Amino acid sequence: MTYKFAKGVASLKPSIIREILKSSGNTIPLAAGNPAPDAFPVDDIKEIVNSVFESNPVLALQYGISEGYAPLVEKLTELAKTRYGVGADSDALIITSGAQQVMSLMSQCFVNHGDCVICEEPSFIGALNCFRSFGARLSGVPVDSDGINIEALEEKLKTEENVKFIYTIPNFQNPAGITMSLEKRKAVYELAKKYGVLVLEDNPYGDLRVSGEPVPAIKSFDEEGVVVYSGSFSKIVAPGIRVGFVLANKEIIAKLTVAKQTQDVHTPLLSQLIVYKWLTEYDFEAHINKIVEIYRRKLNLLCDCIDKELGDFLTYHRPEGGLFVWAKLNDGIDMLDFVKKASAAGASVVPGNAMMVDGEAECSYIRLNFSTPSDEDIVKGVKILGEVARSL
Amino acid sequence: MTYKFAKGVASLKPSIIREILKSSGNTIPLAAGNPAPDAFPVDDIKEIVNSVFESNPVLALQYGISEGYAPLVEKLTELAKTRYGVGADSDALIITSGAQQVMSLMSQCFVNHGDCVICEEPSFIGALNCFRSFGARLSGVPVDSDGINIEALEEKLKTEENVKFIYTIPNFQNPAGITMSLEKRKAVYELAKKYGVLVLEDNPYGDLRVSGEPVPAIKSFDEEGVVVYSGSFSKIVAPGIRVGFVLANKEIIAKLTVAKQTQDVHTPLLSQLIVYKWLTEYDFEAHINKIVEIYRRKLNLLCDCIDKELGDFLTYHRPEGGLFVWAKLNDGIDMLDFVKKASAAGASVVPGNAMMVDGEAECSYIRLNFSTPSDEDIVKGVKILGEVARSL
Repeated sequence: MTYKFAKGVASLKPSIIREILKSSGNTIPLAAGNPAPDAFPVDDIKEIVNSVFESNPVLALQYGISEGYAPLVEKLTELAKTRYGVGADSDALIITSGAQQVMSLMSQCFVNHGDCVICEEPSFIGALNCFRSFGARLSGVPVDSDGINIEALEEKLKTEENVKFIYTIPNFQNPAGITMSLEKRKAVYELAKKYGVLVLEDNPYGDLRVSGEPVPAIKSFDEEGVVVYSGSFSKIVAPGIRVGFVLANKEIIAKLTVAKQTQDVHTPLLSQLIVYKWLTEYDFEAHINKIVEIYRRKLNLLCDCIDKELGDFLTYHRPEGGLFVWAKLNDGIDMLDFVKKASAAGASVVPGNAMMVDGEAECSYIRLNFSTPSDEDIVKGVKILGEVARSL
Repeated sequence: MTYKFAKGVASLKPSIIREILKSSGNTIPLAAGNPAPDAFPVDDIKEIVNSVFESNPVLALQYGISEGYAPLVEKLTELAKTRYGVGADSDALIITSGAQQVMSLMSQCFVNHGDCVICEEPSFIGALNCFRSFGARLSGVPVDSDGINIEALEEKLKTEENVKFIYTIPNFQNPAGITMSLEKRKAVYELAKKYGVLVLEDNPYGDLRVSGEPVPAIKSFDEEGVVVYSGSFSKIVAPGIRVGFVLANKEIIAKLTVAKQTQDVHTPLLSQLIVYKWLTEYDFEAHINKIVEIYRRKLNLLCDCIDKELGDFLTYHRPEGGLFVWAKLNDGIDMLDFVKKASAAGASVVPGNAMMVDGEAECSYIRLNFSTPSDEDIVKGVKILGEVARSL
């Protein structure tokens, strides 16, 4: 039988990352994006799960409501306000199956085939492919060292038709590692208001700041229901439990809730109970301080190794947090050739074009991750990259 | 700000069930569809979760692949063949976040706005709303006492444009309680082949057979990759963990996997490990026998109560399994009036129009559930319904 797939999914290409790295099974994983396993609060979660099954197993096993476990929704609404400075009386919050589901719910609720989503370029491939799969036309705006280029963004808003939202990761952007300045955050908000376009503010890495001062969220300026704010517990608790949340104007949340019901009814209760009890009964601030220490050490180690082994072959902007370093190979080095040879030599990195709106265009960037490999493997892996660079 | 929702979501009406039952908070829940809590293998799951955190907590907490935990995929592929008689060499299977996600992935992968999905009428509202939210045009085919009306189905296949799939629940259909005959299953398969349309066979209740003999799945005839088969652990393990699966031709599964990645990356590992260990280390056949006993008792109790209290006011077809009884109120009883008065009197049932393609059309059916209420509440609830019927 010949299958007639929907337009958005039919035109989706297999991930360039997967293609290039197919043969990289046993390489050092500088390409990955997994949080460090020693950053998981394993003992806390074990205790929580035991106590859930001691006290109220049926709560963890029966159907729940699509909005999420009510005490968790309440706790996060409070935390959003006190810790992240976001959330107005006209807003509501629901629990999602990771922040990835926020991308998907926003697409389902706003994107008709051919509508435009404006995104930073480069950006997170999981979000780009999600928007594409729902038939969105992506329009990329370059990222400067202080965040999205405001002139280019306004030009897009003036010229693109049916723009549904602007997708941005203001803190330690994936992959560029850039943190958007306060001025630019305000400018993005003003432009969104002016052109009647939503902002989807994705903040999975916000708590992983290893240097510099926190910058207020775009959502913190929002008085008109223009900003949809997405958070995640994948990086501060654990990704395998799949818990995120979305905070937005109640009218939007009502639609996202209906869409969530059609996607997975609700996020598993056990996952929600883990996060709820961890936030209310454990010292999560202490845990975040602990993991920030781990990531600071690993980021510094990666940068030191890059400076030593690859200083002659690339340039990069040192991020203030997050999980990634985005580096531009010097002129004369063929990026795809470098990535393939590195993989064959035993160290995998992400080819930058995978993170672009037009994956076919010339690109001289690579993305390096420091959270997945051990410290020892960071040293070994970058050494391999240095050898490959010198051999070209 | 005025929000411009996508067409499929914008036109979605709030659930009639929710509207009607808004004030039914403290009523006896004959309207619900929750499995009976005493049917959950609570002690098994508690042991499993403890052992996971003793032996390999990082496996349960780190990112996994979108296809699902590989040993579970393997085990389910084997079980699909040996227990349910489905799955060919050209097929593959992935884990989903409940069977609801299969509806959603199929919509994302196949439905362009305005495409047609043919469904049984009545049918599961969670599936209908899912298809609608992706912009599908629903076309309903009546259900006879032995399953979907084949002549009406062929007429639809001849006349409807851009039909993407036929959605069917062949075992103990929700809400009609009907089991499709072997002849009709073969006829549906042949028609799907003839007209080049997929079948989405949803089988959440198949294991809950309390009388009669099992009938082979439509997927069991499939030699051409025409049938997409969906299974669930919500009714035989627990719904709160959100684990289901989909089995289909590899080409379809490849697209569904990409879509799953855009929706929630993967189903929580802890949920998958619970199902995997339960299937491999516990006597799940004994558990299914045990819960079938529970459901047989409760179904018989409900039917006995209906015969006694409501025999003069409605007719129904006694189902061979599942969770629901679908009953037609006699002429002269206004169904919506009955449902509202029943809710006010302390017993909630689902108004049948909520399960119809056209929810505005005249409908004299109600759906009663016997898994959620206790035995005592089944007796009390139906007694209330009888009093309401007599008062009209």
